[in-house]
Order: sequence, then structure tokens, then C-alpha cells
Amino acid sequence: MDEFLFGSDEPSADLLPVEELADCAATALGRDGKAILSYGLGAGYSPLRELIANWFGVHPYNVVLTNGRLQGLSLLAEELVRGRSAAVESPGDPRMLGALLGAGGSLIYISGDRDGMITTEIEQQLIQYVRPALICLNAGFGSPTGATLSLARRRHLLELMGNFNRLGVEQLHLLEDDSFALTRFEGERLPALFDLSSGTTLYSSSFSPSIAPGLRVGWLILPDDLAARVSERASSTYISPALLGQATVHEFIGRGALEPHLTRVRETLRARRDAMLAALAEHLPEASWSRPEGGYFVWVQLPEALDGRAVVERAEGVTAVAGTELGVTSVFLRLSYAAVPADEIPEGIARLARAAHELLDEKAA
Amino acid sequence: MDEFLFGSDEPSADLLPVEELADCAATALGRDGKAILSYGLGAGYSPLRELIANWFGVHPYNVVLTNGRLQGLSLLAEELVRGRSAAVESPGDPRMLGALLGAGGSLIYISGDRDGMITTEIEQQLIQYVRPALICLNAGFGSPTGATLSLARRRHLLELMGNFNRLGVEQLHLLEDDSFALTRFEGERLPALFDLSSGTTLYSSSFSPSIAPGLRVGWLILPDDLAARVSERASSTYISPALLGQATVHEFIGRGALEPHLTRVRETLRARRDAMLAALAEHLPEASWSRPEGGYFVWVQLPEALDGRAVVERAEGVTAVAGTELGVTSVFLRLSYAAVPADEIPEGIARLARAAHELLDEKAA
Repeated sequence: MDEFLFGSDEPSADLLPVEELADCAATALGRDGKAILSYGLGAGYSPLRELIANWFGVHPYNVVLTNGRLQGLSLLAEELVRGRSAAVESPGDPRMLGALLGAGGSLIYISGDRDGMITTEIEQQLIQYVRPALICLNAGFGSPTGATLSLARRRHLLELMGNFNRLGVEQLHLLEDDSFALTRFEGERLPALFDLSSGTTLYSSSFSPSIAPGLRVGWLILPDDLAARVSERASSTYISPALLGQATVHEFIGRGALEPHLTRVRETLRARRDAMLAALAEHLPEASWSRPEGGYFVWVQLPEALDGRAVVERAEGVTAVAGTELGVTSVFLRLSYAAVPADEIPEGIARLARAAHELLDEKAA
Repeated sequence: MDEFLFGSDEPSADLLPVEELADCAATALGRDGKAILSYGLGAGYSPLRELIANWFGVHPYNVVLTNGRLQGLSLLAEELVRGRSAAVESPGDPRMLGALLGAGGSLIYISGDRDGMITTEIEQQLIQYVRPALICLNAGFGSPTGATLSLARRRHLLELMGNFNRLGVEQLHLLEDDSFALTRFEGERLPALFDLSSGTTLYSSSFSPSIAPGLRVGWLILPDDLAARVSERASSTYISPALLGQATVHEFIGRGALEPHLTRVRETLRARRDAMLAALAEHLPEASWSRPEGGYFVWVQLPEALDGRAVVERAEGVTAVAGTELGVTSVFLRLSYAAVPADEIPEGIARLARAAHELLDEKAA
């Protein structure tokens, strides 16, 4: 049976640089095998920490590599949010929210729209509720909406942070997750909150979208004290992260393979996005949807309060994530174009649209 | 400066099969790269789960692979011990104890001797205290004492477990960590508690001592319900473990490289143990020490209540772990012979002995 995995959160396998990574793994082990195969630091493989530190203009000490971004968020949440609260976007990144809840944090929801978290809502919310330890958001293209925080809101958010931290007794932290930054295939890159704040905010990212998710290599950029605490917590949880994937990433970047790979990823994602938006316009014009400039996700609002779960269930071979799984109503669907070839996307969307129209007809009857 | 790293808990780099693993990593990626580089199951790389399941005569579902043994212990402790207590050996494996405490568990200490946990103490202790959720021990050669639980005690422990679980309302679990099993270089292998109990106890192990610690591949064998809960917790902590190391291990074993490698590891460890015991007998006959038949650790009791920390501090270039870091007095030292070539061990022990004698002389003066 044909499959249209719009519910996936990873790229199709043809976007994975398998052969290059096989060579990188062998090369890295050949060059630095003894270090890679022994216990390392809780913060991970030093050459890759140095490389990332150079990208961001920080000291390698401030870069903490983890077994994927989610593991880093979990460790950070244990440090900052256990028994406290975090402000998050609604609908929010389900894995990020899971890490915060898993650490025993409570959540304060701030609405989002196509420009990301609505920063004017933060003041109201934070006055009404217990002050959170952390504001946590996706900077761009994140799950589920694929929205990018606008430059005006980035500036406003940092202004708010400054005000809170001048007044407050305890520091309020801001974490931006920027995992999809390197996948931007259109438009201009916005400066990261990390850069706009001169490095006083927290930053997380991942090589899952830019190289390969199975490698499980994510990173945090943290100030000295938090870097020490998170590295220590990492050590006592798993001694050191898996170094082989980190060394493979280091070799992949070091030999200049990242840029050509990203060019291919971006071109492919752009073609798939175009195919999806065109198919939505053709087959389901009654719906409304976002227009992402990077990442994987189109955020769709179905017409006439249709139940997205029922639509997906009826559309044979099609997967998608309904809003109900994301803390909003099922009139929303998260559709990923990353896992489906551009020439197959129209058929998948047509099936979704057919199911939607059948359900609309049944409602009308 | 010469270094004698008796304080290490990993093998020296010459014992790492670097070239073979480089080839295994490339081969594994070449054969199954798309699966290895995509998200996988929370329980890890299926071919390796199947291989281990065959070793133990269980279903692959019951094998949960983690980013090293410690990560598995942490996840299991979160499931079983949070807000409860665990009975452990004293002195106990510092990493294991850290995982239990890190999950918010409290510890009930049971004394150990050269035959492992003193099982007759368990009944007394468990009557006096709140009943634990878990008894957690090293089956053989574990840190810090390197002791092996005797067959009589294994049987007694299982008898106790049966009695407790017939009486109790809530199940008492038993976890044996058997990470050093494959390093036995002398004597007969004892049946695991897991086998003696027909697979009703919990089992953890690691490829760190048998292949390479930096790969971070450990495993748990758990009954269906716990396997599901721990896999689910793994998923929500790090999506899937790092698959590349697991696939590399699978290839290493599949091509028949494990047995010849283990032969070399065992021969080397035996020679290093012999060198260490001979050097202790020659240079520090006033002390007493254990005679491990596998693993890395000799457990030394210094003469005349000497302070092990002071001895190590004075012995130039020598590291060792004093009992104070292990929950007992500093008259004990954990010495590892795994990280130091056999021909260098006598000089390191001589330095320790010289420091000990100087301190004894100063005490006498």
C-alpha cells in the first residue's frame, strides 16, 4: 500500500548522507579512536565542542553536547524547572513540553500565531501566575506550527526579559530552540535571540535536521554555571554521551561535507513544500495553512470545524498529527513534507482532501 | 611524569579494538545506514536486541538497549525507586548508587564481604526498615570491591525474594548488574541470578568492559511491563538511543570478532592482576587485599588504619580511589589494574607502598 507519512518528524531516508557518514565514522575512529572509544567528558567530544564554540563565538566550555536535543532539554529542565514552572508556546513543541513536564515542571501557556509566541501576552500571563523559571520556545520552523518568531517579537521578548531580571530576585531564563536554523530554504535568516542578547540567553540545537536524526547529536549553549551543572548531571546520568556520532559529525563538517549536503536538503525541502502548498490550494482550498520558509511543517486549519482525526483516519495510507495530540483542537493538522517525495505529495494531499470533502458532505446531509 | 592510573575505571587504550570497530562502523552504516541514521525505537537497535535476546533465551522485546549501562539504571530507577527505597551493598558501586539517589530514591545498606552482599543481613534490615522497591547489586567483579556473589548467597537471595513476594502486597524487584561477566579470566562462571530465577529477576549489563566504554552501549533485560515502561521513558527522554554504536557492536559480534578480542582482554587483565598482587605482596605485605578472578578491581585494606587519601596524595603520579569516596573509611583503597601495563604496575605499587611506609614511620615517630 502507498504511504504518505505527513505525520513524520524526520526526513525521508534519501536525504540521509549515508555513504559519506560511513566514511566519516571510519575516518574519525582511525584518527582519534582511542579517545572516542574511551569514557569522555559529560559535555561530549571536545573537537566538536570547539567547532560549535567557534560558530557562536563562545568558549568550548559553554557548549554541552548531548545524545540528541531532547536529552539536553531533559537535563536542562531537571536543573531549572523541577518543582517550578516554564512558559511555553501553545500549541507547543510536543517533545519540548514532554521534557519540561517529565522533569516535574508545570507549564504556563502563551498563545502563538504565525509570527511565533505572542510576546504581549507574556506580561499579562506572568503577572497573573507564579513567575516561571524559564521561557522556552522554538525560534523557527519548530513543531508543530513551523512558525518563526518575528524580529520585532525577538526584540520585545528580550526587553521583557531585561525588565523581569532587573526586578526579580531570581533569574528568569530564556531558552530558544533553533534546531531547524540550517534548513532555511527561503528568505533571510533572523538573528538568534542568543545573538541579540549578546549571549545571555540559552540556546539549544540539533544535527538531526541538518545531518541525520539517528546520530543523536544535539547541543546546548549555556553560561558557565549552568554548563557546569548540566555537564555534571550528564556525567551522573550516562558518564559521557555517545562519542562516535559526535566525532562523525565533527569529521563531516571538518571535511566540508555539510554545505553541499545542506544545499541538497534545502532544495529538496523547498520542492516538497511547494508541492504541498500547491496541492492544498488545488485540492483543499477551503482550508487555510502556513507558508514555512524552512523546516518540515505546514500548519493547516481545516474548514468548518472538521475533525482532523476523522479526516486522517479516512484518508487511506496517509498519516498526519491532529491538533488534539498537540494541545489544541482537532481542526488543526500538522503536515510534514519532509518524509514524502515531491511527486508523491499531491496524491497524499488529494486523499486527505477527498476524506475531508466526504466528511463535509456527511455533515451537510 | 609517569602516571599509574589505578584510580581509573576503564581499560587502557591498547585494549580497545580500534581498527576493527572502525571497519565495523563503516560496514554497519553501509548495510543498514538508513535505519541507523533515522529515529529508531526507544529500546534501541533491533538486530542487537535480537542477538542479546538469543544469548539469554528471552524475547527481543525484553531487551532494552541504552546509552550505556548507567543510563539504563537511571531510567529503571526513575520507574521503580523514585520516592521509595532500594537495598544496596556497602560499599556499593558508586555509579549505581548515584543513579538510585539521582532518581530520588533512599538507600538501605547491606554489608558485603569477599562473597558479595551478605544475604543473611537482608532479612534483618528489611524487617527494621521500610520495605524497599528494589534490591540492587553487582553479580561479579563490580566496583568497588570486585567481589563475586557466591552461589550459596545467590540461592539464598532468591529464596528470600520468593518469601518476600509471597507475603508482600507490592512486588520487590531484584536487579543484578553483570557488566563484567565476560571479563572472567580465571575460575568457573557462576550462573546469573537471572538464570537461577528462571528469568524473573532484572538484569543489566554493558559492552564497556567487553568491547569499549566510549561506545556507550548497555542493556537491560526486563519483564514485559517494565520493558514497556522503561522503553517509553527512554523515548520521552532521548527519542531513541544512539544507534551507530549499537549497530557497530552488532557487526563486531556478528563477524566473530568478540571472542578473539575477549581472549586478548582476559589474558591482559590476568597478567595485570598477577602483577598487582605480586607487587602488593612484595612491597606492602602488611596490607590485605582481594584476589579478583575477573574485572578490574583489587580491594585493599591498608595496615594500622592508615589514611588511604594521604597515601595516594603522597605517592607521586599514582591515582587510586579511597574508601571515603565510596562510603567507607579511607583505610580502604580501590586499585584498578586495567589501565596500567603489567610491567609498569610494580613501580606504581612500590610508590604507593613507599608513601604508606613513610606515613607509618611518621605515625610511629
